[in-house]
Amino acid sequence: MNIFEELESEVRSYSRGWPVVFDRAQGSYLYDEDGKAYLDFFAGAGALNYGHNNPALKRALIDYIARDGVTHALDMYTVAKRDFLETFKEKILQPRDLDYKVVFPGPGGANAVEAALKLARKVTGKESVINFTNAFHGMTLGALSVTGNSMKRGGAGVPLVHATPMPYDNYFDGSIPDFLYFEKLLEDSGSGLNEPAAVIVEGVQGEGGINAARIEWLKALDDLCKKHGILLILDDVQMGCGRTGPFFSFEDAGIKPDIVCLSKSIGGYGIPMALTLIRPELDVWEPGEHNGTFRGISPAFVTATEALRVYWSDDELEKSTKAKGERIAAAFQGIVEAYPDANLFAKGRGLARGIEFPNGDLAGKVCAAAFERGLLMETSGPDGEVMKVLPPLTLTEDELTKGLSIIDEAVAAVLT
Amino acid sequence: MNIFEELESEVRSYSRGWPVVFDRAQGSYLYDEDGKAYLDFFAGAGALNYGHNNPALKRALIDYIARDGVTHALDMYTVAKRDFLETFKEKILQPRDLDYKVVFPGPGGANAVEAALKLARKVTGKESVINFTNAFHGMTLGALSVTGNSMKRGGAGVPLVHATPMPYDNYFDGSIPDFLYFEKLLEDSGSGLNEPAAVIVEGVQGEGGINAARIEWLKALDDLCKKHGILLILDDVQMGCGRTGPFFSFEDAGIKPDIVCLSKSIGGYGIPMALTLIRPELDVWEPGEHNGTFRGISPAFVTATEALRVYWSDDELEKSTKAKGERIAAAFQGIVEAYPDANLFAKGRGLARGIEFPNGDLAGKVCAAAFERGLLMETSGPDGEVMKVLPPLTLTEDELTKGLSIIDEAVAAVLT
Amino acid sequence: MNIFEELESEVRSYSRGWPVVFDRAQGSYLYDEDGKAYLDFFAGAGALNYGHNNPALKRALIDYIARDGVTHALDMYTVAKRDFLETFKEKILQPRDLDYKVVFPGPGGANAVEAALKLARKVTGKESVINFTNAFHGMTLGALSVTGNSMKRGGAGVPLVHATPMPYDNYFDGSIPDFLYFEKLLEDSGSGLNEPAAVIVEGVQGEGGINAARIEWLKALDDLCKKHGILLILDDVQMGCGRTGPFFSFEDAGIKPDIVCLSKSIGGYGIPMALTLIRPELDVWEPGEHNGTFRGISPAFVTATEALRVYWSDDELEKSTKAKGERIAAAFQGIVEAYPDANLFAKGRGLARGIEFPNGDLAGKVCAAAFERGLLMETSGPDGEVMKVLPPLTLTEDELTKGLSIIDEAVAAVLT
Amino acid sequence: MNIFEELESEVRSYSRGWPVVFDRAQGSYLYDEDGKAYLDFFAGAGALNYGHNNPALKRALIDYIARDGVTHALDMYTVAKRDFLETFKEKILQPRDLDYKVVFPGPGGANAVEAALKLARKVTGKESVINFTNAFHGMTLGALSVTGNSMKRGGAGVPLVHATPMPYDNYFDGSIPDFLYFEKLLEDSGSGLNEPAAVIVEGVQGEGGINAARIEWLKALDDLCKKHGILLILDDVQMGCGRTGPFFSFEDAGIKPDIVCLSKSIGGYGIPMALTLIRPELDVWEPGEHNGTFRGISPAFVTATEALRVYWSDDELEKSTKAKGERIAAAFQGIVEAYPDANLFAKGRGLARGIEFPNGDLAGKVCAAAFERGLLMETSGPDGEVMKVLPPLTLTEDELTKGLSIIDEAVAAVLT
Repeated sequence: MNIFEELESEVRSYSRGWPVVFDRAQGSYLYDEDGKAYLDFFAGAGALNYGHNNPALKRALIDYIARDGVTHALDMYTVAKRDFLETFKEKILQPRDLDYKVVFPGPGGANAVEAALKLARKVTGKESVINFTNAFHGMTLGALSVTGNSMKRGGAGVPLVHATPMPYDNYFDGSIPDFLYFEKLLEDSGSGLNEPAAVIVEGVQGEGGINAARIEWLKALDDLCKKHGILLILDDVQMGCGRTGPFFSFEDAGIKPDIVCLSKSIGGYGIPMALTLIRPELDVWEPGEHNGTFRGISPAFVTATEALRVYWSDDELEKSTKAKGERIAAAFQGIVEAYPDANLFAKGRGLARGIEFPNGDLAGKVCAAAFERGLLMETSGPDGEVMKVLPPLTLTEDELTKGLSIIDEAVAAVLT
Repeated sequence: MNIFEELESEVRSYSRGWPVVFDRAQGSYLYDEDGKAYLDFFAGAGALNYGHNNPALKRALIDYIARDGVTHALDMYTVAKRDFLETFKEKILQPRDLDYKVVFPGPGGANAVEAALKLARKVTGKESVINFTNAFHGMTLGALSVTGNSMKRGGAGVPLVHATPMPYDNYFDGSIPDFLYFEKLLEDSGSGLNEPAAVIVEGVQGEGGINAARIEWLKALDDLCKKHGILLILDDVQMGCGRTGPFFSFEDAGIKPDIVCLSKSIGGYGIPMALTLIRPELDVWEPGEHNGTFRGISPAFVTATEALRVYWSDDELEKSTKAKGERIAAAFQGIVEAYPDANLFAKGRGLARGIEFPNGDLAGKVCAAAFERGLLMETSGPDGEVMKVLPPLTLTEDELTKGLSIIDEAVAAVLT
Repeated sequence: MNIFEELESEVRSYSRGWPVVFDRAQGSYLYDEDGKAYLDFFAGAGALNYGHNNPALKRALIDYIARDGVTHALDMYTVAKRDFLETFKEKILQPRDLDYKVVFPGPGGANAVEAALKLARKVTGKESVINFTNAFHGMTLGALSVTGNSMKRGGAGVPLVHATPMPYDNYFDGSIPDFLYFEKLLEDSGSGLNEPAAVIVEGVQGEGGINAARIEWLKALDDLCKKHGILLILDDVQMGCGRTGPFFSFEDAGIKPDIVCLSKSIGGYGIPMALTLIRPELDVWEPGEHNGTFRGISPAFVTATEALRVYWSDDELEKSTKAKGERIAAAFQGIVEAYPDANLFAKGRGLARGIEFPNGDLAGKVCAAAFERGLLMETSGPDGEVMKVLPPLTLTEDELTKGLSIIDEAVAAVLT
Repeated sequence: MNIFEELESEVRSYSRGWPVVFDRAQGSYLYDEDGKAYLDFFAGAGALNYGHNNPALKRALIDYIARDGVTHALDMYTVAKRDFLETFKEKILQPRDLDYKVVFPGPGGANAVEAALKLARKVTGKESVINFTNAFHGMTLGALSVTGNSMKRGGAGVPLVHATPMPYDNYFDGSIPDFLYFEKLLEDSGSGLNEPAAVIVEGVQGEGGINAARIEWLKALDDLCKKHGILLILDDVQMGCGRTGPFFSFEDAGIKPDIVCLSKSIGGYGIPMALTLIRPELDVWEPGEHNGTFRGISPAFVTATEALRVYWSDDELEKSTKAKGERIAAAFQGIVEAYPDANLFAKGRGLARGIEFPNGDLAGKVCAAAFERGLLMETSGPDGEVMKVLPPLTLTEDELTKGLSIIDEAVAAVLT
């Protein structure tokens, strides 16, 4: 492992908890260079909803590469992009009665967020944005300014301004009416709150600790934004593409955000790709006003298109995600109840699930114990106090059974 | 073309000048869906130094995908990353006596720049950065703040602060001593210039108009930074990976910048990848203080490694790049002299070359005329007044001959 | 009135509600150029606690001017400043067991606030400051950024950053525990709240609508700041110098803020003067690091000193202020109860008193009706919905009786 | 001197160089408490152009106070303000064909600058402002951001943004064409310079080192601003009111700035007062959008009015200022030539004069030697390297002779 420690910056993190060298991957499993298998309940932090090296996608990808389909094309017109756009329209937008226009903002989720913030500010002529406690939106300066984690914010080296945090759903355990503070500040012309261009929100906060906003909270947020002329940006980078069941995490709320950010699993195979979806009325950009080199990576379009065809032509995946999610929820609730003195709390929606421990030390030990037993999962939350699972949506019932069993053991090893 | 106009945001730009649908690509050629070939003197805006779908890289890529090598691995240890790091050390760092540590900052060049700026500010405790006139560093908020183009800056929607532009080399056509203004402001404690954490500079400005800094100017900038304790960030996103001849654009100046940004062609095949190289003493980050989803895209590591092995084991590519660059320089000088009244000016270094026209209208017409004749090239410069060519470094002499001939025709068609 | 409308900027405001030309003033009365008397329940917005042209102060002032005492002396040592410092120490600091050092920050309250914010940031190395809803701290850029009023904020022309508003006492009518939101954000490392250098607060918000913080709220705020290592800045520009009874508005809370801002009535006679009081440990400034032309206006020192001697050698003024305040409180409560359907609300502490009306229109009409009857008072609050009285602390019982009687009439004229 | 050291913040500065306690003042002299006289070539840093306790002004002031003229009146209409406005119009605006509207921005020069910057930004909708090297505009956050001195900037505690410094006249000793850099940045849409709302400039830089801009430089700056639609703010806080000869420092250039800032000597007697003069078309403020407590200090209006009547009814003062200035210039040139190896340089215009020494140590020693000999003057410039004299405009020829003689001695004492 010498070359990593010698050459790679100290900023590396995942390799510290999982100090093995991975080589191959297939479906729900990663294999290290010695061939040892690891059941992956982490799934590229949500970038691998269809599993590692999904065979259908792999076939399309190799075919495309083999036939010398153009790989890199900026924002030129390509056959691969046309296929993607047509499929995205047919499988995703039309069935949901959404008429978004599509921005290719750059390769990653932070690009999708930066483009969203830029556009919201340009359209409204206002600088200020409302974010939520424990939000995570990315590491570039614009995205970082709306992110909550103080350690990551500290890395900016400049004061992060133009954002004001509001309490996410359930921040006060239900003791305070939703949006009481936010609405009062908006309505009071002497509150000192800069009038916001936009609100940016995640349907479920993954990095923030698997906090799942209630459907009615999202609805009320949408109402609030409409009432006050504030644009609503839904960051579905991690929770979109079916992670919570439906393609978008906000579908069950029946809302249509002004701007939606997608990345991670949108490419399907783990190759960088991102989208910023915008209401047509917001499409006020001049040609090239936002650009970038990696906005037309055709291999990602190819696997993205194939993923949409295979998994989003019917509601099978949505149903199975919800069902598997319920299995995990039940199992986690069982753990919570099995350790009544441990002060555990089961959280999540769909296949974004977690158990909150009293502190990050315990949650970290459980993850370490799981790793020893061949399961990959990580912690999240401000103090790393939440054991988080984001398995591939495509995992089998047996894999799920096995994963839950390892988690049982790991929790037991730590708590007993 | 309907679906593009219907669904894609108005921000799209390249598709406007080249209104065809590309399908396949190989070497120096792109092919539209009707099979028409276009000689590509644009090369993914510098992301395709080794040509489209380079056969050696393609082979390695397909092999890797076929054997289910892990695709997406965040910053975990992988065999693919180890191969890349070892090869990068052996082929690039060691021969040049460089001891950088490597940050994987995210998928694109803007991520490399954002990480560089964050680190420079964190290390120095200062916020201010010096950039140069007509700089281009990316579209995310941090990168955009050090970018010159006013149209792109206008897209930010917030005031872009913490950066002060200084004149790039030759900004006053040699009439002012280098760094006169910059040095005076630094030395005058009453100048009002915020003490800078860093200077960020491109070895050759591509988007800014193919402005090639003289070797002695880069040396003097390095001296100035050392003298004043300012970190030097060399953004080699577009001009690195051999574009100007040597692997790094700053090699001939004999300098060792504190931080180097690489992206675009570092992946070799057009799949997103970026590096931020930092002097070991600057590696003060905490684990995870800067992170991101797309920092471990193994297919890009595989093609990156193969590209280093094939093209950077000897100095053949560097020599041929310089030789071909001289051919273009001579040809462009010939054009300049052929139209003595047209006020043209040949610019560039290595295979980053351009002809400056009196205005953007003329340069744009020449590019359009070239497109009609089957050649892709674009304009750059603040008013699009520079006809820019960035051909694959791997183009053949015949392809070069053909391209120069089309350019001759296109210029003639516009100017006569 | 021609010359005013012709030459003075449209930004003028008080002259719009009181369109007469004032000439002389004495005690609680202003006289217009026709000799008509106006009972002044506005008192220079709190700058004339000892009444207009207070005879004792006037005598000292004329003596000083007549004997050619130095008028303008920047921060040189002067006899006048020495007298002031000695008297301030003897009459104010020592009896209250306060060991502040004194900064002369410039002529007005905004200077006192700017100096406070600068120092708090310099000492802590943090930029962010917590202010409160409906705060008013001044019109210069630093002071404005912590001020709530959106119309005034809009005048800045740059985004106002580095400040986050928290709910002032009673913002939710007691329905939410004090500091619930603030404390949660501070304790949650993922909240996204920038770690604050300081909290800035008024003991009673005058411009914000005569909102009087409860003693226990101020105490709890002080505890919170201590617990989290946040500096507490108490802006007593309007509410200090006895306005609420004791010299400082925070005395009854038994707290000792880290920094205190004084201005308005500190000079005693209406001549500009301001102080920033700082805990000795915070005195980290270099000589001249904060300076300004009008920091040593000796006539103001002379009247300030005399005012301290006359009014703060015993507790007579404090007692009478509280007693008169109670009279007003009772009278205002009587008005509230006399119009049970009008939805009025009596507010305030000491001689800062108000009646909140359902809207600014009604409150404005009451002030206009009072003006017609020879009483000056203005509205405050975000929508001008609070009828505000700040009479001289020195007003007589008869003057108070008369003023209350006019207010009764004015309210009746508007509400019946 | 105990109470000062005990109670006053370390930020105090003038008292360090002049460690005596001043008591009285008259004309060109200050007297310490032991009766020792000091000839004042500092004049309140330019606030006492008419000398200390000018008899004519003193008489008007005492009369006004004695008759209980209203002292403090915010922005109400008063007889004192009417007199001032009428006189200012008659004596200053009309004879110079200026049609400014008058803002009373607060008590001091920083308020005048803050109001100017706010208005320029509000009118143009742009945030960025151009300031000049070694500018001094004040200590509040907005004013400080356009001030050059790095020590004072360091006191802000937040990054000072929205301002870009350009070289003041003669910054490169005439080696660079005027405005070469500024104009190039403005005209190059890729320069990275944020489009400026305004330029703020002093006619002569006092604190910056007695740098007198040439008339043609000011003219050219005015042309440049007009050409590019940039508002020109002339900060005449220190150099207005006749300091350079004419009432405004810019008169000889024949320009009419969009906004003019006045303070210091406008009140005449040293009592705080400030004006922001604005072109009528810029008067877009809403009532009360910029306000403040000390904007209607009638005693200052009274002395200001009297000063205008006495000194600006004819051109006697202007002529004598210029003549005395020439005397100083000649004397200083004599000193420069008397010490040919000392590398001295005489600077200034009107009665703002200086000698630049090779370093601050020498200049400081000369000022100290002068103080020992009964003359008050201070250093200025980024390193305190300029011995600066700002005598009262009203000083007699004998006083001037005496002062110059002391300066001769002081220089000799240090240099020989």
